Amino acid sequence: MSTDRSPSDTLSALVRSISSRRDFLRTASITVGAGALAACSKSPADTPAAGTATTPSTAPAAGATGGTMGAHDTAKHAPATTVAGRADQMDALHEKGIKAFPAKTAGQGNQLLPPRVENGVKIYDLTAKVVQWEVEPGRMVEAWTYNGVVPAPQIRVRLGDRVRIVLKNELPESTAIHFHGLEVPNDQDGVPFLTQPPVKPGTSYTYEFTVPNSGSHMYHSHHNAAKQVSLGLLGAFIVEPRRPRAIEKVDVDYVMILNDGAHGYTLNGKGFPATEPIVVRLGQKLRVRYMNEGMMIHPMHLHGMHQTVIEKDGWPVPQPYKCDTVNIAPGERFDVIVNCNNPGTWAFHCHILPHAESEHGMFGMVTALVVQK
Amino acid sequence: MSTDRSPSDTLSALVRSISSRRDFLRTASITVGAGALAACSKSPADTPAAGTATTPSTAPAAGATGGTMGAHDTAKHAPATTVAGRADQMDALHEKGIKAFPAKTAGQGNQLLPPRVENGVKIYDLTAKVVQWEVEPGRMVEAWTYNGVVPAPQIRVRLGDRVRIVLKNELPESTAIHFHGLEVPNDQDGVPFLTQPPVKPGTSYTYEFTVPNSGSHMYHSHHNAAKQVSLGLLGAFIVEPRRPRAIEKVDVDYVMILNDGAHGYTLNGKGFPATEPIVVRLGQKLRVRYMNEGMMIHPMHLHGMHQTVIEKDGWPVPQPYKCDTVNIAPGERFDVIVNCNNPGTWAFHCHILPHAESEHGMFGMVTALVVQK
Amino acid sequence: MSTDRSPSDTLSALVRSISSRRDFLRTASITVGAGALAACSKSPADTPAAGTATTPSTAPAAGATGGTMGAHDTAKHAPATTVAGRADQMDALHEKGIKAFPAKTAGQGNQLLPPRVENGVKIYDLTAKVVQWEVEPGRMVEAWTYNGVVPAPQIRVRLGDRVRIVLKNELPESTAIHFHGLEVPNDQDGVPFLTQPPVKPGTSYTYEFTVPNSGSHMYHSHHNAAKQVSLGLLGAFIVEPRRPRAIEKVDVDYVMILNDGAHGYTLNGKGFPATEPIVVRLGQKLRVRYMNEGMMIHPMHLHGMHQTVIEKDGWPVPQPYKCDTVNIAPGERFDVIVNCNNPGTWAFHCHILPHAESEHGMFGMVTALVVQK
Repeated sequence: MSTDRSPSDTLSALVRSISSRRDFLRTASITVGAGALAACSKSPADTPAAGTATTPSTAPAAGATGGTMGAHDTAKHAPATTVAGRADQMDALHEKGIKAFPAKTAGQGNQLLPPRVENGVKIYDLTAKVVQWEVEPGRMVEAWTYNGVVPAPQIRVRLGDRVRIVLKNELPESTAIHFHGLEVPNDQDGVPFLTQPPVKPGTSYTYEFTVPNSGSHMYHSHHNAAKQVSLGLLGAFIVEPRRPRAIEKVDVDYVMILNDGAHGYTLNGKGFPATEPIVVRLGQKLRVRYMNEGMMIHPMHLHGMHQTVIEKDGWPVPQPYKCDTVNIAPGERFDVIVNCNNPGTWAFHCHILPHAESEHGMFGMVTALVVQK
Repeated sequence: MSTDRSPSDTLSALVRSISSRRDFLRTASITVGAGALAACSKSPADTPAAGTATTPSTAPAAGATGGTMGAHDTAKHAPATTVAGRADQMDALHEKGIKAFPAKTAGQGNQLLPPRVENGVKIYDLTAKVVQWEVEPGRMVEAWTYNGVVPAPQIRVRLGDRVRIVLKNELPESTAIHFHGLEVPNDQDGVPFLTQPPVKPGTSYTYEFTVPNSGSHMYHSHHNAAKQVSLGLLGAFIVEPRRPRAIEKVDVDYVMILNDGAHGYTLNGKGFPATEPIVVRLGQKLRVRYMNEGMMIHPMHLHGMHQTVIEKDGWPVPQPYKCDTVNIAPGERFDVIVNCNNPGTWAFHCHILPHAESEHGMFGMVTALVVQK
Repeated sequence: MSTDRSPSDTLSALVRSISSRRDFLRTASITVGAGALAACSKSPADTPAAGTATTPSTAPAAGATGGTMGAHDTAKHAPATTVAGRADQMDALHEKGIKAFPAKTAGQGNQLLPPRVENGVKIYDLTAKVVQWEVEPGRMVEAWTYNGVVPAPQIRVRLGDRVRIVLKNELPESTAIHFHGLEVPNDQDGVPFLTQPPVKPGTSYTYEFTVPNSGSHMYHSHHNAAKQVSLGLLGAFIVEPRRPRAIEKVDVDYVMILNDGAHGYTLNGKGFPATEPIVVRLGQKLRVRYMNEGMMIHPMHLHGMHQTVIEKDGWPVPQPYKCDTVNIAPGERFDVIVNCNNPGTWAFHCHILPHAESEHGMFGMVTALVVQK
């Protein structure tokens, strides 16, 4: 648990965060303290009918204390050489991870990038550069970024907008930007030697086009991309339609970018417990825009509530369909709606279990959906 | 071929099995002897127009005997140092596997678990414990199980039922049960430190809830799950709707749980030739409920008849669609209908070929659909 | 760039190719010279508003020449020990690959196989044999083939046709053909020891059936298949319906078979730059029939235009849906329509980036859709 914020600080931050999230289609960028998970730490004695832990007299494990959440205390009593002792040791690691969530790390990607506007053109300045990036508390990696963050700043425009993207390359390699999913003119498509020259180190390059189609899209490097995208040259390019459909009118609009390259298994550039919880109020509608920038599938499983798929790759599906696990392949996007009608803090993770949990507890592609009463 | 049952024993067992499968929505639990495959062993001389094998005079392979099915006999004639001899040796291994199917092994998972009923509550007792499990004839593995079997006993209830699951942990680690796909109250969701304390070795824990949604769901460990689920702590949790839709009215209802962890590639806890054939009569309707508890996709391909997908993750798809290969990702479930209108014994396997066949013959994720006239 | 054809030769070949592709539902088999990509090689000076490369005075990279496409020239000026020099070296490799596309290699698979017709039966002669296959320029691999090519010759028939496939086995192993997706009688299904004897080396075997269902299907070995299919014993089996639906009336009908076995990542048996571009005229409708014969998923991403999925595994989807990335799992087929309304040469590749690009440039599962004005 992060110790640098008092519970009341945490709570007020959470309330501010929720208040500021009420506008339709505003990008979620939520900070929530560890207090959000405090409700989970109740002792089993609080649940008389169900959730009851008992230590039968036949228990083989000396020192097991049943429902005690204080694994460290328990560990005192059970030597690590016994079954109970080893279980307590493992549990302590699991608990530590969950209590640390959401853990503070330096840097946050996927924040809205406000454009400069000149003569009606929305201009986005992107500098490709190498930085040190904190994926999890204390784990620093080399990241290749747009503007120093992973994922890159989020570009969010409206169908028909005129946009100009000015790329400055401070990388030690050439690069280029592909607007994945946008049906731009060929010479703005960002494939070196096919549609443009590579953007050499130390040079700049300008893309400009009228946004041709709406939906959840991406921008990323298309040069030496197996390396450059893996290292972080990727971001969301959201195009809002002129008239949102009724099903799109949501309270919280959240972009979740999946990656599995050199930085490990990440959601929006961070691994659990540094991932960002999604916080909503009971009864709110949540939209999640999944985007897979990795090399593997990631079947994202939400506990407690189903997901209704409304778009694939930015295109409405003919008929929305319900599920609890959305399998996103590299390059795909799926937009889902969650009716947040089940209160609590819910696990939300990739269901390829080695992407989410080890003997040392949860890691990687795990976050939580917090539905507050 | 199993030699401990006479052909007539096998046949009568098969007839009994079919008779007992007539009730609507009864779980399939089929025992069929190797005789079910006897029809395949006809000599090519039986098919005059097609299926004709010939040995042309230009055959380079000395000793090749064309249509002879008796590979062991053939092997006598062709030395293993010739092309024909090596082919015969390989074929003999392939034949041996198919002739052994369905091979007897100790233990059968996925059997219906009848509840105790107290005051209208259906109570299921589950003991998590380590056993030795026979995946294929003679191959014993350590399995972490509910009630000693892999998959766990099948829980099958009706929407709105009140259920109580009493978990007794006899494992050397803590554990917990997550009801994957069920929209239970948060404190029954089974995620240690998030919704409950871990269930320590030697202790028990009780879950209780009113079943909130219908469909094909799962229950499995959500603690150190990459290990515990891989080793077998998983089972089907089927919720029948109050009123089945017309498309759900089937003759045989079969649950097929896919796994790919420490036990290898398995269907319902067994690898070919120890997998269970699905036996139906010509004209019957079969429902298969695929559930992926593994770490990889498994595109399940049925020969001879198409599959109509009717549900994903327990939720009806807006419009059923036809296919012959259903790609199931970890955590997903797909329910399909097969109109069994093509008689014969049909291969049914994962189409990632290294999950189904090696130089030594079929193995792993292979079974058969037997459509009897 | 292939140097053995003059630009005018290339152009006239392209025009001939396009003219000959106008018939409805004719299989695309397109030869296009490297001239098709010449439009991409324009200097950035041609695009005044966008696409402008600049070398700011603050550029850290000595010798970077901004928009110069001639990477070899650039390399002369920047020593490989500087950032710019190393970037130029890498870019030169990338450029070389793209300029070589479409590279000439010996052998072309997936060509229409005209049947012999006897008494109204369409007869296809297939000889299974081992050949040397040129996957990319100069890279020869051992291939196990039908009729010496990878993929096998394309079989294209009409629903209800009577077909006879005569397989002659010149391989050093037994084999058999499975007609994947076709609902043939059991004894024509091609699974050794289950539905027929294996076809021994030096022998022949005859399949015959009335084509029972339409759509995009496959034929491949079903004996020691993890090896035999990986090495090339696979092909398309297309069944045209009696009456094509309106959505199926296209100008170009292209089969794209994906594989990822012993030959590396291939599209129709070739790796980039030896893959085949798809060439259409602006405004034409293109159908792509994806077929995955490999062991991994391949999410195929088309730049510049979306894809409308109309069939899965040869069965019409209830409602076509749009996307830009189609994830095809092993054994699956997806048919898509592309309305070719965006002129240019568009990258078309698997979006698992390590299947498409390395530090040395694009390779493997990459091709281009050329939309000509």
